Amino acid sequence: MNPEDYILDKINSPADLKALNESERKGLAEEIRALIIDTVAHTGGHLASNLGVVELTIALHTVFDSPNDKFVWDVSHQSYTHKLLTGRKNEFGTLRQGGGLSGFTRRDESEHDAFGAGHASTSISAALGLAKARDLRGGKEHVVAVLGDGAMTGGLALEGLNNAEQLTTDVIVVLNDNTMSISENVGALALHLSKLRLAPLYQKVETRAKEVVGRMPAGKAIARTAEGLSHGVTRLLASEAGAVFEGMGFTYLGPIDGHSTEVLIDVLESAKKLSGPLLIHVVTQKGKGYEFAESNSRMFHGISGFDISDGAIERANGNTSYTKVFSETLLELAKDDERIVAITAAMPDGTGLDKFAQAYPDRIFDVGIAEGHAVTFAAGLAAGGLRPVVALYSTFLQRAYDQILHDVCLQNLPVVFAVDRAGIVGEDGPTHHGVFDLSFLRHAPGLVVAAPKDTIELRNLLATALRHDGPMAIRYPRGGGPCSYEACEPEIMGIGQGERVIEGDDAAIIAIGSTVYPAIEAACQLSRTGTACDVINARFVKPLDEALLESVFNKEIPIVVVEDNIIAGGLGSAVLEFAAKHGCSANRVKLIGAPDAFVQHDSVDRLREKIGLTASRIADTVQDVIGSNQRHPSLRFTKKGG
Amino acid sequence: MNPEDYILDKINSPADLKALNESERKGLAEEIRALIIDTVAHTGGHLASNLGVVELTIALHTVFDSPNDKFVWDVSHQSYTHKLLTGRKNEFGTLRQGGGLSGFTRRDESEHDAFGAGHASTSISAALGLAKARDLRGGKEHVVAVLGDGAMTGGLALEGLNNAEQLTTDVIVVLNDNTMSISENVGALALHLSKLRLAPLYQKVETRAKEVVGRMPAGKAIARTAEGLSHGVTRLLASEAGAVFEGMGFTYLGPIDGHSTEVLIDVLESAKKLSGPLLIHVVTQKGKGYEFAESNSRMFHGISGFDISDGAIERANGNTSYTKVFSETLLELAKDDERIVAITAAMPDGTGLDKFAQAYPDRIFDVGIAEGHAVTFAAGLAAGGLRPVVALYSTFLQRAYDQILHDVCLQNLPVVFAVDRAGIVGEDGPTHHGVFDLSFLRHAPGLVVAAPKDTIELRNLLATALRHDGPMAIRYPRGGGPCSYEACEPEIMGIGQGERVIEGDDAAIIAIGSTVYPAIEAACQLSRTGTACDVINARFVKPLDEALLESVFNKEIPIVVVEDNIIAGGLGSAVLEFAAKHGCSANRVKLIGAPDAFVQHDSVDRLREKIGLTASRIADTVQDVIGSNQRHPSLRFTKKGG
Repeated sequence: MNPEDYILDKINSPADLKALNESERKGLAEEIRALIIDTVAHTGGHLASNLGVVELTIALHTVFDSPNDKFVWDVSHQSYTHKLLTGRKNEFGTLRQGGGLSGFTRRDESEHDAFGAGHASTSISAALGLAKARDLRGGKEHVVAVLGDGAMTGGLALEGLNNAEQLTTDVIVVLNDNTMSISENVGALALHLSKLRLAPLYQKVETRAKEVVGRMPAGKAIARTAEGLSHGVTRLLASEAGAVFEGMGFTYLGPIDGHSTEVLIDVLESAKKLSGPLLIHVVTQKGKGYEFAESNSRMFHGISGFDISDGAIERANGNTSYTKVFSETLLELAKDDERIVAITAAMPDGTGLDKFAQAYPDRIFDVGIAEGHAVTFAAGLAAGGLRPVVALYSTFLQRAYDQILHDVCLQNLPVVFAVDRAGIVGEDGPTHHGVFDLSFLRHAPGLVVAAPKDTIELRNLLATALRHDGPMAIRYPRGGGPCSYEACEPEIMGIGQGERVIEGDDAAIIAIGSTVYPAIEAACQLSRTGTACDVINARFVKPLDEALLESVFNKEIPIVVVEDNIIAGGLGSAVLEFAAKHGCSANRVKLIGAPDAFVQHDSVDRLREKIGLTASRIADTVQDVIGSNQRHPSLRFTKKGG
Repeated sequence: MNPEDYILDKINSPADLKALNESERKGLAEEIRALIIDTVAHTGGHLASNLGVVELTIALHTVFDSPNDKFVWDVSHQSYTHKLLTGRKNEFGTLRQGGGLSGFTRRDESEHDAFGAGHASTSISAALGLAKARDLRGGKEHVVAVLGDGAMTGGLALEGLNNAEQLTTDVIVVLNDNTMSISENVGALALHLSKLRLAPLYQKVETRAKEVVGRMPAGKAIARTAEGLSHGVTRLLASEAGAVFEGMGFTYLGPIDGHSTEVLIDVLESAKKLSGPLLIHVVTQKGKGYEFAESNSRMFHGISGFDISDGAIERANGNTSYTKVFSETLLELAKDDERIVAITAAMPDGTGLDKFAQAYPDRIFDVGIAEGHAVTFAAGLAAGGLRPVVALYSTFLQRAYDQILHDVCLQNLPVVFAVDRAGIVGEDGPTHHGVFDLSFLRHAPGLVVAAPKDTIELRNLLATALRHDGPMAIRYPRGGGPCSYEACEPEIMGIGQGERVIEGDDAAIIAIGSTVYPAIEAACQLSRTGTACDVINARFVKPLDEALLESVFNKEIPIVVVEDNIIAGGLGSAVLEFAAKHGCSANRVKLIGAPDAFVQHDSVDRLREKIGLTASRIADTVQDVIGSNQRHPSLRFTKKGG
């Protein structure tokens, strides 16, 4: 292809799409696919989902007028084509890099990003809000939510779906049905969609106009459909299959071939003229156009980078990952205890439960993207005498905050939370860092909250949790542990028992989880300058090891608490509360952790450096506290920040 | 009726129900109704919902064998008859009193309470957990969830509904359709139920057997139905109406007259023999049997007490309530700002938005029991240029934790959270106290979190929040303010600006919200013994008034922080973090608040006394800190508790 034939070069805004013919759109789709594959191979990111929606995104931007018309991308990990078409193609190489484009939509990145996202199932609610705001303002713009079939299993999406008709507003929901969310899709709605897919794919309006299959829905839906007919929109579904959506008050259009821009544009143009809540069921293929992603879309969901020629995915270097150790340890423990069952919310691979699923297909439950249900269901399992392990990423556990409090903790049920991807996760950014869990779990009465300093401790803590007669959460970071791992007999640890890793009398560093090894290294660095540090592995944020803390406070030395969590309400805060409760002198305590701001996207290393979690930054802080104390022997207030 | 004819006297466990005939069951229902009315008139509690399910509960306990068979009561505020039939009738007079029966089910109260609750929509998930645990254990017991039509609008219930078929287990969901949740029910599912109710009520199996109306569902549902037919169960619904539930994989039975134990027993006996997920649609009347509750079930949902003869409901004594001031102020502010809209999750009355709804029917959105959707929808409205106010009880806001973080705070959208019933709510107990909000809101980056010391300050803060260009939460307690209220021109307050209410140099009390006036009173008490206290109204938990706090710390006096919130992560914790950050001496700071345990049910006054929130308890703590400091001038560690 000659450079002058490169179509994407001519697309500087969605307006430039309008004049393209079908052949140019096909060419554009090819170019975009190649660019996405090439970029993600280097930057990492979400591949399969983005390759699936290239034509859909071109069609949407051809038919609608963003930013006047509003698109709400559910999760928004599939928004790469949208970014390329809305003036961000030149920065696309910076995707997910510090200071570069986000891997998700962000209102502060572009006026074309009407709503930001990162977690599933928010798009219908947000779109309804934008639509009602438009109505009250007297606006005329279209509001379109685009969500995958997986996101449809989330309670929030179902709440939105249920509320749409009542709001009497015009909203278009494009259901991007790629037959699986991240893993295979589950649930009754998924079953429905699979039935819907059996219907012949919608081809072209002219050829099928007035082929109305199925009964008319009652009331205004009839009017809608009649109106639709006049625009040549056909309803291709047998009534039974479409009934769930029709029953929820939506006019259903579909299924539509999601890889034909011609057909998509045809249907979307017609849809623009309909009123009320509209659901357009588009069938796409995840990973479309890249054979390795087509054949293994689960693997190519979210990746670090890969070799384009053979699809070999980059593996994290270094030591055995926490996820793997969790996976193997659980498998072992389950061998001897039939009561152990596992729950995942659509992520058996990411959480390492895939092996458990193979070994114990009857004892694993994939509940779909439904974290609240996952936790309450686990509480039910525990009330029924089992020992459920709920494996979720820290950020997604936020969805189940109330269920943790009420259904698990208030009833003191022995549910184990395996909280993966805690702390800093890196390039996925603010919606994916697990920096709130220590804070929101710590104030749940009766919940034991632990974080292992390495993979061996994770193994021990998991065994401990499954013996503990009450709820317990173990949070651990993404990636490999700080040292090598060899499976040995798991040791049952004392609940609330920390350890003094290094003894020293000049200052103390209290660390937890991923910050323990950097704290040790900081102590080593400091020892070279003559400063001897106590290094405490708190191990538990709740209950605290009171005797150990007492011994630290009794030394009356400066204390630095370091955690890969937001400072507000985390471990440092717990240590200060302890000091206040017991009348300890806490005037020389400094807290290191995420400040009162969302942690942005960047590499894990750079973010850890920035927050102050690296060994040298910890050492600096220790010296700072020692110094500031010497400068202010009267302990007067000083504005020196921490 | 002679005492010896009193049927309830003979019912000491569900087993005693089995021998009753229909006439005795009718008599029993009458007795139970009278007892519930009589008791709730004195104790307060949930009336209308309990009167609605008397026959249903008798029928369930006649057909099933609790505690072997498991009942999961959704919300469980309707469990009074269940309590009376399961050995708790003698303690029924202690309902909701400290040390007495809970107003909800509790696993630690009775073996018949298979699962505790308090928030809506958990029952399907919990029942599925109990059912799968049974399957894995090889048990045979029945598991029955009972939930109202209102609870069905919650995302958690919909997640459970969606997941049921996939779990291939036997579970019975009794949908208690009383045509409204707390307020009128909303959403597409509600519309469906209203269609279903048009079908003739199910009468008696013998007379209607084999009257199968509607098409057969596909696959195994056919087998189920065929099996059902052989047991004489009829499917009375037109396919369109039942289709949503059938589409979700449930076998649908109904609608059934919920006030005929004969019919209910007949249907439930048949249902016991079916397999797979089963939904029994029972139609009941809220408030049944008490005319005042029948005609005004919204009013008689949750009440403090009432006069049986005329239905006059006890009003809280004292000053104008926070709810009323919020209600009136919002109404006023909305007059001058068309962008102001309001969102309620099925509680327009409780939150005081009923007046707003009357005045601005186009600007209020009742989204049903769907707090997550309420918040994300509000974020959408804000992104669309409006100024939404989400009015929720503190405890229910817990359901929207992730949505607050991601959809509102991360995008810095100007959503106002009016958080009612914060702090100690009293007799409703652990599931209803709002003692976590300061902690879980405080660590949401960018969120302004405030609590007014009185109703006038609430008015000012609301006006301030609606002018603030970002998210802000205002939390305020149940009931009347501490002093009289007169509406005046709202004052725009400085964000993060506290106030020194009393100046003193012997000790400082830092208070917020409902604890400010008791702190002032404590200072007055202490002044009589010669101790002069600084009293600080923090007003904001975030951002803190740093200059004000600095001035307090610079006095180097003992500090007591007092809040009606859990200590972990709350205001006290924020003050300690501030001290650590700025190198202030924090060795004489004591925190008063809820400890690491769920606050039980009791009167607000007794609970506040117990936690230490009353003036005299605060004064005691101040003296204790002053004293303990004198005893330990070297600030050594001391085990003295706080």
